[in-house]
Amino acid sequence: MKIWDKGIAVDKKIEQFTVGRDRELDLYLAQFDVQASKAQANMLATAGLLSAEENQQLQQGLTELAAHIEDGRFAIEEDFEDVHSKIEYYLTEKFGDAGKKIHTARSRNDQVLTAIQLFLKNYTERATTKTLELVQVLLQKAEAHQTDLMPGYTHFQAAMPSSFGLWFSAYAEHLLLDLALFEAAHTVADQNPLGSGAGFGSSFPIDRLQTTREMGFSNLAVSSVGAQMLRGKTEKTVAFALAGMAATLAKMAYDLVLYNGQDMAFVELPAAFTTGSSIMPHKKNPDVFELIRARCNALQALPNTLILATSNLPSGYHRDFQILKELLFEPMTQFLDILDIVLFALPQLKIKPNLLHQEKYDAVFTVENINQLIQAGTPFRTAYKQVGVAVEDGSYVPHKDFHTTHLGSVHNLGLAEIQAKVERFKERTRMG
Amino acid sequence: MKIWDKGIAVDKKIEQFTVGRDRELDLYLAQFDVQASKAQANMLATAGLLSAEENQQLQQGLTELAAHIEDGRFAIEEDFEDVHSKIEYYLTEKFGDAGKKIHTARSRNDQVLTAIQLFLKNYTERATTKTLELVQVLLQKAEAHQTDLMPGYTHFQAAMPSSFGLWFSAYAEHLLLDLALFEAAHTVADQNPLGSGAGFGSSFPIDRLQTTREMGFSNLAVSSVGAQMLRGKTEKTVAFALAGMAATLAKMAYDLVLYNGQDMAFVELPAAFTTGSSIMPHKKNPDVFELIRARCNALQALPNTLILATSNLPSGYHRDFQILKELLFEPMTQFLDILDIVLFALPQLKIKPNLLHQEKYDAVFTVENINQLIQAGTPFRTAYKQVGVAVEDGSYVPHKDFHTTHLGSVHNLGLAEIQAKVERFKERTRMG
Amino acid sequence: MKIWDKGIAVDKKIEQFTVGRDRELDLYLAQFDVQASKAQANMLATAGLLSAEENQQLQQGLTELAAHIEDGRFAIEEDFEDVHSKIEYYLTEKFGDAGKKIHTARSRNDQVLTAIQLFLKNYTERATTKTLELVQVLLQKAEAHQTDLMPGYTHFQAAMPSSFGLWFSAYAEHLLLDLALFEAAHTVADQNPLGSGAGFGSSFPIDRLQTTREMGFSNLAVSSVGAQMLRGKTEKTVAFALAGMAATLAKMAYDLVLYNGQDMAFVELPAAFTTGSSIMPHKKNPDVFELIRARCNALQALPNTLILATSNLPSGYHRDFQILKELLFEPMTQFLDILDIVLFALPQLKIKPNLLHQEKYDAVFTVENINQLIQAGTPFRTAYKQVGVAVEDGSYVPHKDFHTTHLGSVHNLGLAEIQAKVERFKERTRMG
Amino acid sequence: MKIWDKGIAVDKKIEQFTVGRDRELDLYLAQFDVQASKAQANMLATAGLLSAEENQQLQQGLTELAAHIEDGRFAIEEDFEDVHSKIEYYLTEKFGDAGKKIHTARSRNDQVLTAIQLFLKNYTERATTKTLELVQVLLQKAEAHQTDLMPGYTHFQAAMPSSFGLWFSAYAEHLLLDLALFEAAHTVADQNPLGSGAGFGSSFPIDRLQTTREMGFSNLAVSSVGAQMLRGKTEKTVAFALAGMAATLAKMAYDLVLYNGQDMAFVELPAAFTTGSSIMPHKKNPDVFELIRARCNALQALPNTLILATSNLPSGYHRDFQILKELLFEPMTQFLDILDIVLFALPQLKIKPNLLHQEKYDAVFTVENINQLIQAGTPFRTAYKQVGVAVEDGSYVPHKDFHTTHLGSVHNLGLAEIQAKVERFKERTRMG
Repeated sequence: MKIWDKGIAVDKKIEQFTVGRDRELDLYLAQFDVQASKAQANMLATAGLLSAEENQQLQQGLTELAAHIEDGRFAIEEDFEDVHSKIEYYLTEKFGDAGKKIHTARSRNDQVLTAIQLFLKNYTERATTKTLELVQVLLQKAEAHQTDLMPGYTHFQAAMPSSFGLWFSAYAEHLLLDLALFEAAHTVADQNPLGSGAGFGSSFPIDRLQTTREMGFSNLAVSSVGAQMLRGKTEKTVAFALAGMAATLAKMAYDLVLYNGQDMAFVELPAAFTTGSSIMPHKKNPDVFELIRARCNALQALPNTLILATSNLPSGYHRDFQILKELLFEPMTQFLDILDIVLFALPQLKIKPNLLHQEKYDAVFTVENINQLIQAGTPFRTAYKQVGVAVEDGSYVPHKDFHTTHLGSVHNLGLAEIQAKVERFKERTRMG
Repeated sequence: MKIWDKGIAVDKKIEQFTVGRDRELDLYLAQFDVQASKAQANMLATAGLLSAEENQQLQQGLTELAAHIEDGRFAIEEDFEDVHSKIEYYLTEKFGDAGKKIHTARSRNDQVLTAIQLFLKNYTERATTKTLELVQVLLQKAEAHQTDLMPGYTHFQAAMPSSFGLWFSAYAEHLLLDLALFEAAHTVADQNPLGSGAGFGSSFPIDRLQTTREMGFSNLAVSSVGAQMLRGKTEKTVAFALAGMAATLAKMAYDLVLYNGQDMAFVELPAAFTTGSSIMPHKKNPDVFELIRARCNALQALPNTLILATSNLPSGYHRDFQILKELLFEPMTQFLDILDIVLFALPQLKIKPNLLHQEKYDAVFTVENINQLIQAGTPFRTAYKQVGVAVEDGSYVPHKDFHTTHLGSVHNLGLAEIQAKVERFKERTRMG
Repeated sequence: MKIWDKGIAVDKKIEQFTVGRDRELDLYLAQFDVQASKAQANMLATAGLLSAEENQQLQQGLTELAAHIEDGRFAIEEDFEDVHSKIEYYLTEKFGDAGKKIHTARSRNDQVLTAIQLFLKNYTERATTKTLELVQVLLQKAEAHQTDLMPGYTHFQAAMPSSFGLWFSAYAEHLLLDLALFEAAHTVADQNPLGSGAGFGSSFPIDRLQTTREMGFSNLAVSSVGAQMLRGKTEKTVAFALAGMAATLAKMAYDLVLYNGQDMAFVELPAAFTTGSSIMPHKKNPDVFELIRARCNALQALPNTLILATSNLPSGYHRDFQILKELLFEPMTQFLDILDIVLFALPQLKIKPNLLHQEKYDAVFTVENINQLIQAGTPFRTAYKQVGVAVEDGSYVPHKDFHTTHLGSVHNLGLAEIQAKVERFKERTRMG
Repeated sequence: MKIWDKGIAVDKKIEQFTVGRDRELDLYLAQFDVQASKAQANMLATAGLLSAEENQQLQQGLTELAAHIEDGRFAIEEDFEDVHSKIEYYLTEKFGDAGKKIHTARSRNDQVLTAIQLFLKNYTERATTKTLELVQVLLQKAEAHQTDLMPGYTHFQAAMPSSFGLWFSAYAEHLLLDLALFEAAHTVADQNPLGSGAGFGSSFPIDRLQTTREMGFSNLAVSSVGAQMLRGKTEKTVAFALAGMAATLAKMAYDLVLYNGQDMAFVELPAAFTTGSSIMPHKKNPDVFELIRARCNALQALPNTLILATSNLPSGYHRDFQILKELLFEPMTQFLDILDIVLFALPQLKIKPNLLHQEKYDAVFTVENINQLIQAGTPFRTAYKQVGVAVEDGSYVPHKDFHTTHLGSVHNLGLAEIQAKVERFKERTRMG
């Protein structure tokens, strides 16, 4: 059953190619299509385009469908090309004309778009909540490991004394910062396109502000042409958000893979986290973090894929937009899975002690030697050259006893300041 | 002169390769390095690391440099590898030891990063202001052309009656929406990294909140490791913002290129805007809009380029980040040029009248025929089939006299609602 | 509370995350792993590392597995993490020690890599054959429509007289040209990595040239370190080939979508190929070609996704490479599906006659008017200006009676020359 | 002077935006435009469209221009929008009508395209030659360091004994393999588009095979529509080739950056190759290799940028193609610079001896311990478990005395076989 059925047989092969994986992917949208259909029916009733009784029937039918979706009974059978056909069919079978009328003043274009907007808005909220959980775990780890020193690297070279406290709190701050893109995605998703029809509105006397309020959107996508142009843009903005945070998680995973090797050996992963080699019995490979890294790097490619799939199309709907569902929805789920794995793994991470006792890291203290000289009155540039010469001629003795005071340094992590940033974010966005 | 000079000759060929185009690109950063150096000097004075007199000298020298930058006298000669060396040299030449001391508790890493943060923060503000100008132009055009009908397209097929009012206001709303990504970029740029040194802080008793306030940053990038991780992230977030809005501008340009062809012929570009063919004297090619489209499409590739240039690097500084300047700064300028060209071109665009009088567009009124039948009591699905049959058998007569009432439709553009969204944006962000 | 805070179930979650979709995707590789295992066993026997009897057992077992794969009985159950474990298990269950010995002098790294090389080499051959079929269809259509004129466009503007003969033969030539990238992919896939172990070889006295010959590889990937570096490179080169040809197919689809609209109306798609609108009964949307375009555009993003997933990794195996299977294998299948759909659709395409009789296309003949003037002795630049003025002042009369003679022009398509290029390609590559 | 000048003033601002950096970038094309113009004039003379005297004049003028280009006297002044206008102007100023006639049966479209094809074909040949030089250097280094052992890594973990001989020869083989994409690019560039005019041919009696022969093209791009479709495709194929080899060079650079750090410390870069830190006097940063890595990673993004800039355009010329020059030409030059730097740097690289004497690498010999057990009759899987237990309980003693025999292993690098592959490549392609 297709809602645009004109009675002409569509070639089977063609149908398969065009429907693609819609039936499977549309399950992501089912609850949101029900939510939007309820708002639509209520509004049609207010506008006098449905009788009160018809609306009551539709509300009842949609509530039933919501329950089916909730408890897993809902399915989109082979007869239906998508979730929207299935839902309309259910209502029409049950209530006859009332079911047919729900599509009044609505096109499949704004119907799909509204469900996607609701879904993506909801997703950004869920991802934000989970990220804020991870931020808390990182801040706890930072506090727990604030005295665990490690060499800090630049150019892949041991550079200066750093600490796991700084390392964990760095990622806490960055995940929080990455939420700025989720906030942008939320803003774009928080626009109601319902009522824009196929992108040019209709002559029905509908009230688009009513559906905006009822679905909880903060804004109406006013111009019907503009509403239709949301298709692709909201998806892309969500992809930007995923890509942004994925970069942070990939970097963290890369660090841990490096820190787990024999050369650095800064951390120990629980045995359950590692996998072996088919020929080398000594290997404990950090596959989980390698796969987090790889998947996060693939996620960084996602915006580009969405852009390429839909760039250089003039305004108005094109069927091309349909494939965004298959390109985006599964990576979105995968991203939440990654956050789950990280949330699970981090608390079990063991940090090796006394890393800076190793002679190979002596030179990371040159900056401290210089600072000592400066405090004793030597100008910076002179001290710099003096210590450099000592390193070169082998007379250098590291000044390991150092103490930092400024915010964000080894001995003053400023965790309260970071926590305050978290609170300000929550207050501003009312998320988390 | 290099600020890390240890007296060992660096091969000329190597130096050329590593310095690259830094001297040229660093001009973008000059004023911001001066601004940050002033804040740094003031803070060092407060912390007792500079005498009041030394600070006064440095403030004076930096004010001079700011004036040179302002009036175009400032240059980075071949002797200097970057803007930072040049500024420090100027101060040291002039004030001796005071000049040497400005680098106390600062590394080139946080110095460059701070200048970039200030520059990108400033840029997002300027781009936002220019975009809001364009939004106003589009809203004016929407108002001026609210009665100019055009066919609305889906699937590249004439679908329903639309209007230039809807078209212009669609782009106004979308540019406003695209500013959400600029806001995110602004948030990321609005973090002060100064004092994080090479990414691990220092043992100097500096006050990072003082420099934060003095440079007008809303936030301190607390963890020194995290501060260093901003390198690349802010650039990328700006690139996301450019790419997002570029997609909108490319779509608008694509529409206009199409509308300018003989087949649609909806608009007329002033002769001065078109270019000709070397062999076809009748051609008036819309090159300007083709080039806007192409450049905007190239801008959509920018985030991916930045991501690839710096992905899969563990935490800590890598020289790789340097090339982001050459990848990003010129496209940023180009983007503002594009906004300028659009601001210049749009007011001159002529819309052809009576487009829907053409018979080839009769079928765009089928929806209106259906609505008439519905209002006369026919259920939607029945009316749909009835009109479909009429189109098929040639008996269809378009119902051209239609009137829409809902927000965002042909006869009710809702420009006041869109303007209200603009005002809410300005109020929230205090930009524009 | 997290769903996987539960002891054993937690390890399960990690395992699920690391195994991913390997069981499903490894079915693509099954027949090739069997082929490589046969070569491996034969070589081990030659080298005296297997007895003749053991080898006979293994050959028999592998032949059985090949038959199971062929007739669809082969499956990778939950107990096995991948196809390789399953095959080794089968042999070990059946033959005991002989089964255990097949992994001698082999690591899972070179085993997986060899199966992937064989699979991708085979794929490039199949894709080449199918492409050459499509080239023939296009050449037939070119011949059939060599007198069907159409306007040729530049800058989206009708420019000069062209023909469907030129259009079809253009795509024939381009698909042939796109095979150059498949040839490159074939070259990269045609390197035998077997025997390189985990990327560093082994001290077993194996004969890598023997397996090279037996599996039909043209080259040995000599350096074991280099052999391992094929992982990711072959996949990426195949992705380049897909992306290259996808661009051509997307362009063809774009043309057809445009040509199917009311404004150009150059072609007619069979009703069975089009889909309708839920609210506009007159619509016959060219969804198939829109989806071909979109999928081909997504395929153009594929190389970038593979690059990002694995860039910036030092030499040596990383688990990251595993996800290339899920990123690449399904799009490879999808690409063949697209070729099938195009092969199916093109023969049914109807071309509308007499397109250049329409007045709106009169100006496409200006070049002919100019050439007439030139033949009458007017210099080119003068003629160009003269005709330009006529178009401008409305006095222009198109010179529609034109005849071209050169290769590749309207009246001399040069199909024999194109066919000769096809034959030279077949001869050089021995493919098709 | 524009060759399509119709006497209408084009707005200055618009002109600047449309001309862009063409004058500068067209210098890359100058010699090739001269070469093509000579072939064009000779062919026009043969076809009777130029007199023998006119052709003689043009040949002389073009030879002069070639000399100017050669010795650097040639420039494209502000008066000309591109190199083609400049050359035509030179000929017209000098020879009057003969100059005007050179554009007979040619459009700017096929003129630009022909110059680009010649330029890119020439470039792929030059890049191939330089790459083959680098392959030789790598093979020499492999030979020189065939006994220098190092740990081989998988999953960033020390895995098995490897050697610098294997490492250098791996990169030699891979660069050779990367030339397959250059060969593909050469194939695409080796198609003559001249005579296809604006993409639809002309009614002039030209001989396109004559120009094909004279310019040394192996093939004619037969269909004029297809010839025009080369625009963008050749550029993209060159970009694929650059991206492919850039990945190899980036990996090599990454290895060297890692090997240069304190943790691995496998190589030593000459002091002249490293740069320092502004605050840490002990740092010797491998900036050159970091920048090679970063630039090569940016090059990997290039195909995607070209794709995005020109995707989703129907057939026929669009001005969008112009920006490919600015996107591609400079990275092409940069790529050759990188090859030069690598050619310069590699011979100076110092390898540290006795790396496997370090205890932290003992476990890389587990595979050898296993092989010993196997040779003593233990089945592989049993030996694997036994050695694994020994590593776990601390009783493991590494079997460091190992000897490999197979091709591509530590003690049998197979350099002659690799050299033979190089020779086969040269013979097949007649390049290098």
